[in-house]
Amino acid sequence: MSAVKLEVWRERIRKELDDTVDFWLKYSHDTKHGGFFTCIGRDGKVYDELKYVWLQGRQVWMYCRLYRTMERFHKPEILEAAKAGGAFLRKFARVSDGVSGGGRWKCAFCLTRDGKAVKIQRSVFSECFYIMAVDELSRATGDEDMQLEAEQMMQQVIFWVREDSSGLGRPPLPGDAPPPSSMAVPMMLLCLVQQLTEGRGQEVAQKYGELAGWCVQQILQHAQRDGTAILENVSLEGAELPGCQGRLQNPGHALEAGWFLLQVSGERQDEELRRVAVDKFVELPFRGGWDEEHGGLFSFLDVDGHCPTQLEWNMKLWWPHCEALVAFLMAYSHTRRPELLERFSQVYEYTFSHFPDAEGGEWFGYLTQEGKVALDFKGGPFKGFFHVPRCLYMCERMLDDLLANGD
Amino acid sequence: MSAVKLEVWRERIRKELDDTVDFWLKYSHDTKHGGFFTCIGRDGKVYDELKYVWLQGRQVWMYCRLYRTMERFHKPEILEAAKAGGAFLRKFARVSDGVSGGGRWKCAFCLTRDGKAVKIQRSVFSECFYIMAVDELSRATGDEDMQLEAEQMMQQVIFWVREDSSGLGRPPLPGDAPPPSSMAVPMMLLCLVQQLTEGRGQEVAQKYGELAGWCVQQILQHAQRDGTAILENVSLEGAELPGCQGRLQNPGHALEAGWFLLQVSGERQDEELRRVAVDKFVELPFRGGWDEEHGGLFSFLDVDGHCPTQLEWNMKLWWPHCEALVAFLMAYSHTRRPELLERFSQVYEYTFSHFPDAEGGEWFGYLTQEGKVALDFKGGPFKGFFHVPRCLYMCERMLDDLLANGD
Repeated sequence: MSAVKLEVWRERIRKELDDTVDFWLKYSHDTKHGGFFTCIGRDGKVYDELKYVWLQGRQVWMYCRLYRTMERFHKPEILEAAKAGGAFLRKFARVSDGVSGGGRWKCAFCLTRDGKAVKIQRSVFSECFYIMAVDELSRATGDEDMQLEAEQMMQQVIFWVREDSSGLGRPPLPGDAPPPSSMAVPMMLLCLVQQLTEGRGQEVAQKYGELAGWCVQQILQHAQRDGTAILENVSLEGAELPGCQGRLQNPGHALEAGWFLLQVSGERQDEELRRVAVDKFVELPFRGGWDEEHGGLFSFLDVDGHCPTQLEWNMKLWWPHCEALVAFLMAYSHTRRPELLERFSQVYEYTFSHFPDAEGGEWFGYLTQEGKVALDFKGGPFKGFFHVPRCLYMCERMLDDLLANGD
Repeated sequence: MSAVKLEVWRERIRKELDDTVDFWLKYSHDTKHGGFFTCIGRDGKVYDELKYVWLQGRQVWMYCRLYRTMERFHKPEILEAAKAGGAFLRKFARVSDGVSGGGRWKCAFCLTRDGKAVKIQRSVFSECFYIMAVDELSRATGDEDMQLEAEQMMQQVIFWVREDSSGLGRPPLPGDAPPPSSMAVPMMLLCLVQQLTEGRGQEVAQKYGELAGWCVQQILQHAQRDGTAILENVSLEGAELPGCQGRLQNPGHALEAGWFLLQVSGERQDEELRRVAVDKFVELPFRGGWDEEHGGLFSFLDVDGHCPTQLEWNMKLWWPHCEALVAFLMAYSHTRRPELLERFSQVYEYTFSHFPDAEGGEWFGYLTQEGKVALDFKGGPFKGFFHVPRCLYMCERMLDDLLANGD
């Protein structure tokens, strides 16, 4: 593939990133109560004032990361927006003891416009995105208290995941034998380890070294059936689980795990991990997950070919395509195998011809199997300022590096 | 519409009911552990052994109702299957105190094949379908202990709904102001009142009279905006709620509420309630919910025309079409307005040309907006032996009556 092609991709990606940042800067800020609106319609209008905590945290993180690491986003308005979002999060996300039983670190899943808890999940993800936000904010502002707060909450999350989950409010049930392990949890913790340790020296890296190893090992356990399939749920010991839960495949999630593992392989210069990441977590889920008839990645599949019970199983969602773009470009960057760039090109063509909305800005999130827009909002309970800009940001930087190195 | 047409419909419906009963008798019985498999693939094969409690209860209820009230289903094998399902439910559905905090009546949502709890919902529906099952079983068998058990659990459910819901494990949150009221709860309780009181005399009817009145009043409160829309969630006092939750419409659910209300209007000979039921809960949600482009009923709509956040909003699901068939035939039976039979015919044409699977038997449950099968299983976490046979059973009986009365 020629440098011209890489240039063309980079220009489009750079423009999409600029447009995406503009969209959220323009439409999502709540100047009255602070924080970000997350339910934003096709044309930018807020259709619900609820504030989803995952998305508050992710937007703070993304703003800070752009501000901190990309010259053209190093602008006061982006830092101020991140700080305002962080202040809202720190003031309102955590719910009081009496309500949740989860102790002083438990966060709500969803808040009213003025910060009252509407929903609490019995999982650790709100807390994890809180940690990402506050740690990245501490880097952008130099505020060490925030770094400390992120580390303290991280200790609580680790305790819930590895010691005792009863504080989350989901009692172990007799039918949960063996207890299931979703790939999401070690992926999330690995992401947090990378967040908390990046550039902070050997001591901090050592503090989380054992955890990082555990996360990698837990993720690798999801490669099942002699390495022919990535399964979303296995037992803690790495055994396949019975039924739909055990047979479930989520190609986008496997691809995301793929680039997480690739990053670790790079840090450790671990060739074997790199090979497994590319073969098993990038190429394999793509082969199984790509819709040969209509293009695009399925949302869910059953490894034995049964119909998944998730109603959206054959829909094409924005985020698996974002993860696939990152995964293939990173895999190519690490290996320089041309077929990985071919795959990137294939995903790129589908993604950029289906998801961006030339009229209203930003990307649609939910297409039918055939590629028609099924839900036309730009932000919703699970779609915010995260997968699209993170993908564009990472791809732009990887293309910069490839072009700088004369590819 | 001619009697010939009614005859044609009745024959098809009778045949579909026979086939549906055969399908579940053949494929769903677990002769080893008792109870019913509910995850059944296109061809009848069990693809997951999990047993969903709603569906266990509904299948026991439906078998008993058919056994008890339709001559051709008054067969020992149907009664035995119902009894075996009831025994499984009574043995395993209720979870022990320590696990749920909900006291001795709290039921699980989902069980392993051998009856161990896998999931508990923080709502009352598992308990409600348990009550339906056990009460109907008491009628089919004459077992008064079961009738008593149903009544006792009913008292607990009423307490959770009207007095104190803390035993369900969902604490009231600061953002729940005003607390939302879903139409599902009063519909379910009204259904249970009809179940528990049918044919049991004045004393029992009086015992639940106030509750029935409350349910009807609560349901009617969902007619909003000067009677131009049925909204799925309102406040307990009948005020519209903010955001997506407040604007949500579920046409199939409104149609089901319509025939529930029509039944009450018949029992009470309440002409005004009949008028409201037909105008506001049958004709209105159909007009708004029918897809003029592709046919069929949408699953969810937003009253202000925003895109719903439910990913399946534009999919065509089996159960709203079942409810629409019952609602229009009942509305016609009550009023003899020919346009209501025309609507029945319209829904009938769509339903019978899209949902039944001539090859594998039974009905598909989940179609795309365009009417293509999206999920091909016959039973799943929410589709069991209930909406299809209940609809066919009720329509057959209503057509019997119409034909007997010389329509």
